[in-house]
Parts: sequence; C-alpha cells; structure tokens
Amino acid sequence: MERANMEYLECLFCQKKFPLNIFDPFCPECHSPLLYSYPPQKREFHLDKDHPLECALEFLPLEKMDLNLSLSEGNTPFIKLSRIMDQSNLPPIYAKNETINPTYSFKDRGTALAVQKAVSLGIKKIGTVSTGNMAASTSAYGAKAGLKTIILVKEDTSKEKLLASGIYEPFLTKVQGDYGELFYKSFSVGKIHNIYFMNSVDPFRIEGYKLTGFEIFFLFNHKAPEYIVVPLSSGGHLIGLMKAFLDLKKQGLIQKIPIFVGVQAEGCSPIAQAYSSGLSRVKRIPKGSTIAHGISNPDPPGGNLVLQMIRKYHGLITAVTDQQILSAQKSLAEREGLFCQPSSAAALAGLYKLSSKIQFHPEDRIVLILTGSGLKAMGELARITFPLHNTSLPQLEGFIEENV
Amino acid sequence: MERANMEYLECLFCQKKFPLNIFDPFCPECHSPLLYSYPPQKREFHLDKDHPLECALEFLPLEKMDLNLSLSEGNTPFIKLSRIMDQSNLPPIYAKNETINPTYSFKDRGTALAVQKAVSLGIKKIGTVSTGNMAASTSAYGAKAGLKTIILVKEDTSKEKLLASGIYEPFLTKVQGDYGELFYKSFSVGKIHNIYFMNSVDPFRIEGYKLTGFEIFFLFNHKAPEYIVVPLSSGGHLIGLMKAFLDLKKQGLIQKIPIFVGVQAEGCSPIAQAYSSGLSRVKRIPKGSTIAHGISNPDPPGGNLVLQMIRKYHGLITAVTDQQILSAQKSLAEREGLFCQPSSAAALAGLYKLSSKIQFHPEDRIVLILTGSGLKAMGELARITFPLHNTSLPQLEGFIEENV
Repeated sequence: MERANMEYLECLFCQKKFPLNIFDPFCPECHSPLLYSYPPQKREFHLDKDHPLECALEFLPLEKMDLNLSLSEGNTPFIKLSRIMDQSNLPPIYAKNETINPTYSFKDRGTALAVQKAVSLGIKKIGTVSTGNMAASTSAYGAKAGLKTIILVKEDTSKEKLLASGIYEPFLTKVQGDYGELFYKSFSVGKIHNIYFMNSVDPFRIEGYKLTGFEIFFLFNHKAPEYIVVPLSSGGHLIGLMKAFLDLKKQGLIQKIPIFVGVQAEGCSPIAQAYSSGLSRVKRIPKGSTIAHGISNPDPPGGNLVLQMIRKYHGLITAVTDQQILSAQKSLAEREGLFCQPSSAAALAGLYKLSSKIQFHPEDRIVLILTGSGLKAMGELARITFPLHNTSLPQLEGFIEENV
Repeated sequence: MERANMEYLECLFCQKKFPLNIFDPFCPECHSPLLYSYPPQKREFHLDKDHPLECALEFLPLEKMDLNLSLSEGNTPFIKLSRIMDQSNLPPIYAKNETINPTYSFKDRGTALAVQKAVSLGIKKIGTVSTGNMAASTSAYGAKAGLKTIILVKEDTSKEKLLASGIYEPFLTKVQGDYGELFYKSFSVGKIHNIYFMNSVDPFRIEGYKLTGFEIFFLFNHKAPEYIVVPLSSGGHLIGLMKAFLDLKKQGLIQKIPIFVGVQAEGCSPIAQAYSSGLSRVKRIPKGSTIAHGISNPDPPGGNLVLQMIRKYHGLITAVTDQQILSAQKSLAEREGLFCQPSSAAALAGLYKLSSKIQFHPEDRIVLILTGSGLKAMGELARITFPLHNTSLPQLEGFIEENV
C-alpha cells in the first residue's frame, strides 16, 4: 500500500515507477534518467502568491516553499522582438529572458527547486558536474542554504569560469579524466557519501524548469503560444519546458501544447544527428567544437528522452553553424538590446533556419528562450568585432560633426 | 503665463526654476546639476499595472510609457541576508539586488526613463560618457529604441569593457584627454548636434532611480525602512533614491524618510572627504586608486548636491578600504549566494564600518543596494583567491571520502 507521502520517479521508456532515491535518479532497468511522477489530482495555480514557486506549488514536488533558500529566481523579462520582426516575414517573436536570474542563467530555475527539495529531505551535501552556468548556480544556492556544495569540473576549465563558481566558495575540484564518465561517476560517489548531485537531467531540476513554461502561459493570458524554441544540450531544459505544458494540458488549462524546437550547434549536435537520421537513440560523438560552449555536450544524458518526447509531440530538432549563431547573437544585441551567450542565440539562429520550412500562420506566437548572459561568455567572444572610433578632446566636436 | 505642458528643472542651491532644456541640464547661475521639478499635485500609484514605470507614472516626468522601449527593468530581487545577520549583532538587513536588471546594473533604471523621455520628445540621438555600466546600459536601450547612440569612453578602456557596450553596436569612440573635462564637453557637443547626453547626473536618469525607492516602499508594505546604504560615486543614484522617499513624504504616504548612508572607496573618496571635513563643496582629487572602479570618480558632478541633501536629511557618508570591500564581496557570495561588483559590496563594508557608531534599534530595517553584477568586474577580480582542489576520475571516491 502506498503511503500518502511516498514519492515516485518514472521511466518513460519502461513505463514503470520506482520509489524516489534522490541519489540515484536512473532507471534500474534501462538506465534512462527518471522523471518525477505525480499522482493524478486536480491542481491549481495560486496567482495571489508573490513567489513563482509558491504560485505553482501544486504543480511541484514540494509541500511548501522555504523563502530563505530563494534568491528570487524567475519572473524574468518577456520582450517582444519588434525590431527583429520588422526585418523578417515571421509572425510575432518574443524572448523569455532567462539571463535575468540570480546567477544570470536558466539553471537557477532548476537549482532553486532542487535545493528546496534537498533541504526538505534533510540533505546536507549537494553537488554538480559542470563547467559553466550550472556550477555557478549550484554554488550560489548551496551558499545561500548553507549546504556543503561539491563542484566537479573539467581539468582544463578556464580561470574565468572557475571564479564564477569559486566566488561562492564551494568545494571546487578539478577532475582529470573523461568528462562524460565523470557525470555518471558523481552519482556513485554521491550514493556512498550522501551527496545529492543535482546534475543536468536531475528530476527536480527538470521540475524547476517547468516554472518558465508556466510563466509563458500566464503571459499569454493563460494560453499556450504556438512555438517555443530552446537551445538543446543535455536535454533537461527542453524536457522541463515540455512537461510544463503537458501538465497544463492534463489539467485542462490548454488544449494543445506548443510545437517545441530544440536547437543544437552543428559542431556538437548528437541529438540533431539522431533526429535527422530517424534513430531512437543518440550516439555519443567525439568531443565537439563550437563557440556555443553552453550547449556543447557530446553525450547528452537526456538525449533519448528528448528524441522520444519531440517525436511524440510533433516538435522539431535542428542544428546551426557558429556563423549563424554569432550573427543571431549580434542581431539580438544590436536590434533588441539583449546580450546573451552564443548558446542562447542558437534559438534565434534555429528559428531563422526553419523559417523557410515551417508554414507559419500570421497569428502564431513564437517564444525564444534566452538561456544565459553574454557576460558569462566573454572569453568565447574575443573574436566578435564591432566598430570603434578614436578622437581627442579638442577634436571631439569636429569628429562628431563629420561622423554622426 | 505657464503652459500646462511646460516642464521645468530646478536648482536646489539657487532655489530657482528653469524651463527644461534636455541638452543642458545645469544651472545657468551656479552650474550645479538641475533636478526635475514637479508642480504640486496629489499623486497616486497604480498597483494594478504590470510595469514599474506605469505603476509609478504619476510620480514620473512622463505622460505615458512606451512598452516597446522597455527591456523589462526593475522588480528586482529583495533578499533578507539571514546568514550574514547570524554573524552580526545588526538588525535585519536586506539586499535590493539591482544586478538583476537587463544589463546587470542599476543604471538600467535611469536609462529606461531617460530613453522614454528622449523618444517622447522626438530626440533621435542619445549618448553617454562612461566606461562601465552606464555605457552598456545606454547602448542596450539605444539599440532597443533604434536611436543613434554615441558612447564616449576613456582612451585606456579595457577590451572587456568595450565589448560589453560594443556588442550593441553604438557609435563607440575612445577620446584622448581628461575624462572629467569630457563629461562637460559632451554637453557642449550635444547642444550643437542635438545629442541628448544622458550622463550620470542627468535629471531624467535620476527620476528613473526613484523606482528602486518606490519598490522598497512597496516591499515593506507601504512603509519606509530606517536605513538605506548605497555605494556613492557621481551622486546621481543616491539623489534619485532620496528623491523617491521625499516624494512619498510629500504625498503623505510616509512620515519620515530613511537615513541614507553613502559609501565611497577610500582610494577615491572626494565626497566622503568633504563630508568629514565639514565642507559644503567637494574638491576634485587626483585620479583615485581602488578596486571599486564603478565608484571611482575623482570629480563627482553631483557631489555638492549629495553633501547638501545628506546633511539636510541627517544621512551619513563614509569610506571603506579595498580590503573591507573585498571581504564584504566574499561574504555576500559565500553566505548569501550574491555575486556583486566590488563597488556594490562597498555598501555592506560601509554598514560594518558604521555599525559601532550607529545606535541601531533591534526593529530597524537596513537595505543595501547591490548596484552591479560581479560578472562585470572579472578583470578586477583576478586577485580574488578561493580554494581549488585536484583529483582524477579513478581517485575521486577516495578523495571525497577524505576531504568532504
């Protein structure tokens, strides 16, 4: 007999449920990442609540929200890209600017929820395997919660990226060896030492990403947009966003979920390759090469799940070149005042690429998810060029007269 | 006879009003920066509106707000610093996290309003003199509005800072010569060429900073906190925040304005020096030296105004060392998960410094304004150290066993 408070994770491939073991969120049979499983129940939003987590509490795996653990994530800007639209024949395009989060990336949505869960379960040690946004996010939330936070990074991680996590003083460790293996190894170490590794496809992290989807639904006056375009790496973010709209549909709040478009960088696009080849499993590829470091994952743990969900719900996956990414990044900055990472700009690049193939209706609404701030990729942007002029104080007026 | 739509700026020193000339916001008699002058009138907030500017429209120098010019600034996180409080004997401390703005600093509050005003007046060219946050902010909003945007920077501005503005493709120009003179020179050039230079003490920029004050008032359930601690550079930000609470008092919404504390860096503290010497005018000092670049202004244009307002309303000004700043910055990151610029951390350092001198009541509420993201000062943080460990994949479990 199930206890009322018993929690389950489910495998979408084996169609089985397993009691929650937060230290080991993989299917014991097929080794796929497990997702959180909710009992069927009528759920409602509480729009009178200030904090997004409280507002959506009935849709989340939490009994209550502890405000002391929050850095006030979410409620991010939603911007109509009017000037980009002027240049295109596309229907209305909006950006959900997830760079305006406590550590300047979408990862905070997931970390916020995973840390709430960790503390509610009495867990004292958390960790992650990451070199970028997720490391900084986990370090920050771990610091706020007073948890011991173990961050495992690649041996060749740049000083800039180390500092962006190191400033929060986690237990930061460079690990020599294969990075893909480190992802799985962290769970076996976590199980032994009671460290909750909230890695990219962690089921609670994925539940946290649903919040972005719910906010989009509210912003369209409790309707779903027709398209959501998301950069695609490990798969966790896209799965979370899709899960939000599946929840809404299950509750009868929408009729149809949006068409999801996952965008990879051509230099590292194992999921896009499997998708276009009609495969049901993603093949690990050799280490990729792209300017979009944030979505460069040659062995994405959520890849098979993404393939399954995208096919089931009529989504699309595509890949774009670094040139297309940089051009989209420049366009977002120059025309819309939005400075995002190359990985984020991949969403706009992907939209442009598909715009000739998709039959858009003029009343469709397209939402791009901007995942991380450009300030976090300054090293990668050294090759960006922009006009720079020179003059002197006495010559300033004449210079402006001639040139402006 | 005044026309209904005639707008005025006022000089707090000469006690005179002058018709608005947006290209020349200085007193023709004493050369002080002018502030926007409102006719006496009952004003109300419209809390049903989504955007902070719309909500406070009656308190602002705008007839309407154009949503197309907004990057969704404001509504920034408000975080109780519980873990920092645990270590101190201070009353409740809160951080208003202005780093969570579209270009990751408080400057967006001012730029957003100044750009609204510019467009409403039919102005086509805007500009600023800045090397840091204000340059990026003005470039981004100028891009979103489709305005020609002229950014004048110091000759020795780092490539990192140039890129943070350059990405938006403004008309970016390095100007050889004295930086203090460039500030004033920009206005004379602006007058000739119809370029609205929205520099640090621009009256509309200052009106925009009021929004942060209004949000703090709402967050305390329509009451004022007892203390607000702000990093102090040109003076514009502090003046704007004080003006918000003076507005609230004038409307009878609060009885007493908070005690404002302005914090400078000892390496460049002309206002703090004038304050502690009892002077009424700030003396320009030689180029300062501090890690807090964002508040390093040896010739602050709003300095005299700050001295006058701080004295009139019983505020305080102090200065802190780089050591104190770095320690406060580390503390905010390690204990609260907040990574801000050294300039922002000066607020906490200043609070610590004054904590032995101020007789706090246990029920007082202290608000620190965190002005800009740590990601914008990575170059300055090269000397920050943090523990970094090394291991290898096969040794990982043993390493964690021993060390965590």
